[in-house]
Amino acid sequence: MSTLATEQVERLLSLREMVDECLASHLAAAREQGDGEVVDLAEHVLLSGGKRLRPLLVLLAYQAAGGKHPEDVLPLALAFELIHTATLVHDDMNDEADQRRGRTTVHLLAGSAKAIITGDWLFVQGFGLGGRYDEGVVSIMARSCSDIAVSEFLQLDHIDDLTTSPEDYLDIVRGKTAGPFAAGCQAAALVAGRSAEDAEHFRTFGEELGVAFQLVDDLLDLRGSPDMGKPRGVDVVEGKMTLPLIHALTLSHGAERERLATLLSSFKEADWPELMDLLHRSSSLEYAEVLVDLHLERAGAALQRVGAGPAVPLMLDMLREVGERTR
Amino acid sequence: MSTLATEQVERLLSLREMVDECLASHLAAAREQGDGEVVDLAEHVLLSGGKRLRPLLVLLAYQAAGGKHPEDVLPLALAFELIHTATLVHDDMNDEADQRRGRTTVHLLAGSAKAIITGDWLFVQGFGLGGRYDEGVVSIMARSCSDIAVSEFLQLDHIDDLTTSPEDYLDIVRGKTAGPFAAGCQAAALVAGRSAEDAEHFRTFGEELGVAFQLVDDLLDLRGSPDMGKPRGVDVVEGKMTLPLIHALTLSHGAERERLATLLSSFKEADWPELMDLLHRSSSLEYAEVLVDLHLERAGAALQRVGAGPAVPLMLDMLREVGERTR
Repeated sequence: MSTLATEQVERLLSLREMVDECLASHLAAAREQGDGEVVDLAEHVLLSGGKRLRPLLVLLAYQAAGGKHPEDVLPLALAFELIHTATLVHDDMNDEADQRRGRTTVHLLAGSAKAIITGDWLFVQGFGLGGRYDEGVVSIMARSCSDIAVSEFLQLDHIDDLTTSPEDYLDIVRGKTAGPFAAGCQAAALVAGRSAEDAEHFRTFGEELGVAFQLVDDLLDLRGSPDMGKPRGVDVVEGKMTLPLIHALTLSHGAERERLATLLSSFKEADWPELMDLLHRSSSLEYAEVLVDLHLERAGAALQRVGAGPAVPLMLDMLREVGERTR
Repeated sequence: MSTLATEQVERLLSLREMVDECLASHLAAAREQGDGEVVDLAEHVLLSGGKRLRPLLVLLAYQAAGGKHPEDVLPLALAFELIHTATLVHDDMNDEADQRRGRTTVHLLAGSAKAIITGDWLFVQGFGLGGRYDEGVVSIMARSCSDIAVSEFLQLDHIDDLTTSPEDYLDIVRGKTAGPFAAGCQAAALVAGRSAEDAEHFRTFGEELGVAFQLVDDLLDLRGSPDMGKPRGVDVVEGKMTLPLIHALTLSHGAERERLATLLSSFKEADWPELMDLLHRSSSLEYAEVLVDLHLERAGAALQRVGAGPAVPLMLDMLREVGERTR
């Protein structure tokens, strides 16, 4: 039940198709150059129906920033998707995941050694495209990628850590999810010729959207969703401390907190009803929903301050759509 | 027993010290920004007395190409070392190596997950610095890094493969060792303002030196060397097909080849005398030595064609020194 009008959905789909085609051509060119099996593995994970959220954001932010030549920002958009996919390949190894975007993960398909190198190759492709831009854009990209690594360390350190605070959580999310969204929008505005100050507002838009997006993902992990391409409760089983869990652990006490801690420490399928009941009692899902709205509002405010043109209402509707996914 | 004059040794040492200091400042700046443990792990492997061959080559090639402002090429030199170190961290995982540059490898120290991310972080640092240059330089770097990945796939496919041909070997070496040497020298010449055609000769210099360097490494793996920082026979034990082994397997036949194949398939410390005897009978070490000289000569010829200034004799002496290491 999309809140987007048909015309808008079509516009997004056609942008996404363009991104898919460009990614496919990039891989074809690499294959032409003789890159061989690494391209096959990269293709396996890259061309498997990703949402292309990061490149779409880059393209839309560029338009909202007044950019008139989408081909100028396209390599940047592709760079963000390639780097994102690189981190997915490496993440899946660290999470020992079996599936990604409905397909077997690269390390299960080809072994750890080739999966590490496939991730590296994807990183290189991303940086090769991103490196075409001037120093300001490159340093935004590099900073964003460093932040991803730093926040992945934080995340690893907080696996199964029931004392993780909301601040720890936000540090992780700001680096890992919101960081690339923020960097993509900021860099797109610079490529469109906007001032550093304006680009900061585009950055804020991306960052707030990214935090909201992660919170929605947290909620979907608990509630399940047919279009997620992954089963419900993956985060819970992996010991990833999502915000609803952190909130519930913080609020509850006594026997209830003890029970919640026990459930989370050795979670089984049969524990779902009890876990959901505990989360409802502390209003933790509702709390996360309120935060989603808050961050989406902030994102919208930042965008309306500096954005213009037909991309803006489309992006605002996308914000609404993100919020709707959790209801 | 260095063939370099004291003055030249001092010049190289002072260049290396400068590289070390710049790498240390780069890490300090990242630590300042709050990058935390990933910087500690990066430092553990980066500041542990590497030879800094790649950045030194970049600096010297720049000077030989007539560049007058070493600070212009310094980020490029550091980029090549950071990317090289990233590949070492990931390689060591794939090789299950315990030691690197005399220290515990990152994955043994901090686990696989953090080692993968530390490698990624080092890649990002390298590309962040390299991305400051214009598109020509960036695409040379990106191509070189893609080639590393492609040749690592080839290498994995040829582990324990006794039918590996000299051509397979050269494909692997050209991508993995010679490629970054070639790319560094070519890019340095471009940064110094030389034409694309001249830069190609610098590329040839780097590529030929790189092949020679790998052959020397192959020989040292068989003969051992006190200054290698790794024990003799690592390649043999790991099933890496080095050129002397490939040559011996190609030349020998009948019972002798069978014995050699058996030795290599399940190599033990006690097999050394017999292995060396078989290699001597096929003159395989001598063959590799001749190839070293051939590639060094070609490197020298390319350099003398386009290089000038005091860096040139220093680089030629370095070539001689590389050759001497195998004797």
